[in-house]
Amino acid sequence: MENKEISQAVIARLPRYFRYLGELKDEGIERISSQELSDIMKVTASQIRQDFNNFGGFGQQGYGYKVDFLYEEIGRILGLDRTHKMIIIGAGNLGQALANYMNFERRGFLFKGIFDNNPELWGRKIRAMEVKPMEEMEEFVKENEIDIAVLTIPKASAASVSERLARTGIRGIWNFAHVDLCVPEEIQVENVHLSDSLMKLIYNINSLDDDGRK
Amino acid sequence: MENKEISQAVIARLPRYFRYLGELKDEGIERISSQELSDIMKVTASQIRQDFNNFGGFGQQGYGYKVDFLYEEIGRILGLDRTHKMIIIGAGNLGQALANYMNFERRGFLFKGIFDNNPELWGRKIRAMEVKPMEEMEEFVKENEIDIAVLTIPKASAASVSERLARTGIRGIWNFAHVDLCVPEEIQVENVHLSDSLMKLIYNINSLDDDGRK
Repeated sequence: MENKEISQAVIARLPRYFRYLGELKDEGIERISSQELSDIMKVTASQIRQDFNNFGGFGQQGYGYKVDFLYEEIGRILGLDRTHKMIIIGAGNLGQALANYMNFERRGFLFKGIFDNNPELWGRKIRAMEVKPMEEMEEFVKENEIDIAVLTIPKASAASVSERLARTGIRGIWNFAHVDLCVPEEIQVENVHLSDSLMKLIYNINSLDDDGRK
Repeated sequence: MENKEISQAVIARLPRYFRYLGELKDEGIERISSQELSDIMKVTASQIRQDFNNFGGFGQQGYGYKVDFLYEEIGRILGLDRTHKMIIIGAGNLGQALANYMNFERRGFLFKGIFDNNPELWGRKIRAMEVKPMEEMEEFVKENEIDIAVLTIPKASAASVSERLARTGIRGIWNFAHVDLCVPEEIQVENVHLSDSLMKLIYNINSLDDDGRK
């Protein structure tokens, strides 16, 4: 497949297709038309066809997509046919919550280590991992060929930690710190700014109020 | 102000403006031009002016925006000048992480209760809250005039819980369950699908690889 530039908007929609197709598969459904998929996902059928055309269309021949095939293909496009080694930086509540979330492992996301700068946490077991001091991070990343670092640390330390990570050859940062990171462009960053998300919810609630519950 | 329809894309950017303006304010900066704001936020100056024009423009008169004023105004637009009462449904790791995140309270997001259907957790203290049984949820929402429910439960129970919530008159759901909810349109839903976000990161990492580290 040609590696043409695919918009981030399309890419952001792929996991949602993958999720719905997984559910259809679990329900034993073998084929689905773009119109049926459109009805359950609440996006237009033409949007679905356009999105899939970015990847060659997955060959709907008048009688629908093969659910199994489509699920596998989108999984493969997302890179879920490979495993990815991850570390968590910040062993607070959020770091522990992510470490304990089993569903990630099923998708090939393997948590290999967890780090914190609080000595009281060192040695504490979180699943199969012992919390390690931040000083050991660089060596651990290199020795264990870690692909992705999950940042669940306060924003004050996020900049310096991401600079250190950049020098280790890490490939991606999943950033929960409430700040935008500045890293070389060969490192992919995906932000989860929880406060931003909550503020957006608040705005939408209040704008309904102001319209007199339209 | 006229309540014209403002696109979700603009609304999604407001918290980020708010965050950067808060930092400028903390640094003691009083004025900033759209060009300077553009440089630090890495969006175009014309995007910034267009976004702000949705709210009347905030009157940049050739010598920049007043940081303080802009910060207050965007906070007011987002509804951060009011308090919002919240409950958490699901007292697992993620629910506890959110309950313990102090920054939310500073913005007027007040956690009032936390619920779980696991009897072993009932009565356990998380900050000032005791975990309560799910059976008490409806009455609690009504008595305490709860605005927002945070769903940190598995996807299997998310549909039935959100139906129960819809009948209580709740105004918003902040949904961490890995499923899209189906609720009446007067209830605002904001999704945080963590797996989707991680898959997007994986895709971006792999597409760099496929291009031979472009």
